Amino acid sequence: MTLNVLFAALPERWEFYRDSLNEAFQSARLEVRLQQDFEPEVIDYIVYAPNGPVMDFRPFTRAKAVLSLWAGVESIVGNSTLTQPLSRMVDSGLSEGMVEWVTGHVLRHHLGLDRYIRGAPGWDPVVPPLARHRAIGILGLGELGQACAHALTALNFPVSGWSRSAKTIDGITCLHDEDGLRRLLSDAEILVLLLPLTPETENLMNRERFSLMPKGAVLLNPGRGALIDDNALIDALDSGRIANATLDVFRIEPLPQDHPFWSHPRVTVTPHIASETRAETASLVIAENIRRSEAGEQLLFLVDRVSGY
Amino acid sequence: MTLNVLFAALPERWEFYRDSLNEAFQSARLEVRLQQDFEPEVIDYIVYAPNGPVMDFRPFTRAKAVLSLWAGVESIVGNSTLTQPLSRMVDSGLSEGMVEWVTGHVLRHHLGLDRYIRGAPGWDPVVPPLARHRAIGILGLGELGQACAHALTALNFPVSGWSRSAKTIDGITCLHDEDGLRRLLSDAEILVLLLPLTPETENLMNRERFSLMPKGAVLLNPGRGALIDDNALIDALDSGRIANATLDVFRIEPLPQDHPFWSHPRVTVTPHIASETRAETASLVIAENIRRSEAGEQLLFLVDRVSGY
Repeated sequence: MTLNVLFAALPERWEFYRDSLNEAFQSARLEVRLQQDFEPEVIDYIVYAPNGPVMDFRPFTRAKAVLSLWAGVESIVGNSTLTQPLSRMVDSGLSEGMVEWVTGHVLRHHLGLDRYIRGAPGWDPVVPPLARHRAIGILGLGELGQACAHALTALNFPVSGWSRSAKTIDGITCLHDEDGLRRLLSDAEILVLLLPLTPETENLMNRERFSLMPKGAVLLNPGRGALIDDNALIDALDSGRIANATLDVFRIEPLPQDHPFWSHPRVTVTPHIASETRAETASLVIAENIRRSEAGEQLLFLVDRVSGY
Repeated sequence: MTLNVLFAALPERWEFYRDSLNEAFQSARLEVRLQQDFEPEVIDYIVYAPNGPVMDFRPFTRAKAVLSLWAGVESIVGNSTLTQPLSRMVDSGLSEGMVEWVTGHVLRHHLGLDRYIRGAPGWDPVVPPLARHRAIGILGLGELGQACAHALTALNFPVSGWSRSAKTIDGITCLHDEDGLRRLLSDAEILVLLLPLTPETENLMNRERFSLMPKGAVLLNPGRGALIDDNALIDALDSGRIANATLDVFRIEPLPQDHPFWSHPRVTVTPHIASETRAETASLVIAENIRRSEAGEQLLFLVDRVSGY
């Protein structure tokens, strides 16, 4: 029996997801008709984005589940028209992509690749120290911070991590509180920002905290733009305290064309590409959940409507 | 009791090794006087390089062992004046440094970092595929090839490796013979050369083999310069078959100033820095062997004078 699956996200996401979803359905041996424009009463499953076209779930009388493409479901859990099971997205691609971006830029700075990539500096064999002697600091030890920490320790980098509450993680020096933050910053030759943005973490990297870092340290920010006081960073770059800032996220995105980060010789801008949800891996989660539902098994990442996640 | 240790390598290596060796002796709680100019008869241990000043070991009547700084000891095993135990160097730093260079350049090409490092391309969010969809090929599955393969599979890259004789290695697609080589080359988006140089491997990467590779593939050579037919590589770069060649080793080193690799826009030259023996890790091996000898334990990496290694 063919299942009718509605793609209820923004129309411009259709091109991005169509092939991945159909391939994932095929791999899961599901016979699916995937469209953007079914009649509600024939639909079996809704692939859903909170900014998409569906607000009222009452016409979807046959739908067996609503499968969110987003990790955050705060805008739908309170929707009283939704009576079906709801799953949120936990995309391994997001974490894998982040690990690749962070590990790639850490190795780039560790090995000093920029001079070779920018042009031939001549035959000047300077061997970098081994990773085991390059101190890495990570602010934030959530899922992404821990995944990056493990990838870097696997390459022998000594990693210190900082989180608001005390943690214990194998192979990583875990620090917390203000003293721990000062200790981490004063040791880190390469600092990675992976904190959530909260009133406490906004502008965390300010003048005082940059001044604690070793001269010539490198900053990587794939977390949130507002973790950094931009003017304090530019001064730290100009003084040589920070040798390079590689930034993937910004207070305003796209980064405005006249922002000094674009032209600063010690800043590398990447356009918010470190942690994109990947259609290919997200599609696997959707297909697996339809397979489970059809087999009478419990959905992955089923949302508890009371706790809200 | 203080031990007299002779540093019998080229005089210019003294600056490079002195501090590392003294630190390693201190960590091993050895009381050592390290010099380049003792009287032979007071010497307890000889730290040795085959291109150094010592040829005749007979005057070293008190020496308990000869500890080579080189992995290759073919020029000393036949020396009949040597009656003491001889150890060769197995330097973890060499393998670690190689893994870092290879992983760094693989991630650099995988993530397309060059465009961001060379200058701001504007806000154009192109998310690279995940590592799990980027096929890596490694020619050579010796100690270095395997170490690189494991580091890359830990980052989810699918890795195929090729060796002359059939091998089985967990998590890696192992290929051999001419058919296996063709299969590996036709799949590899990033190809790493880590073969030893022998009459069979010289010019292995010739016109025919470059033509098997996917259009836009990347070549990394931290192995040996003569594995590649240089002219065939330049033609493959000019035709776009190979998008970038990142080369650390060359037929003539330093690479001559007028060699076309220096100025080719699709070639990155690094000056033979991927696999340098590291003074810091080599010094740990020397110190550990002196500690073992003093404790009456067997030396690490003891050379069998009959087999020659």
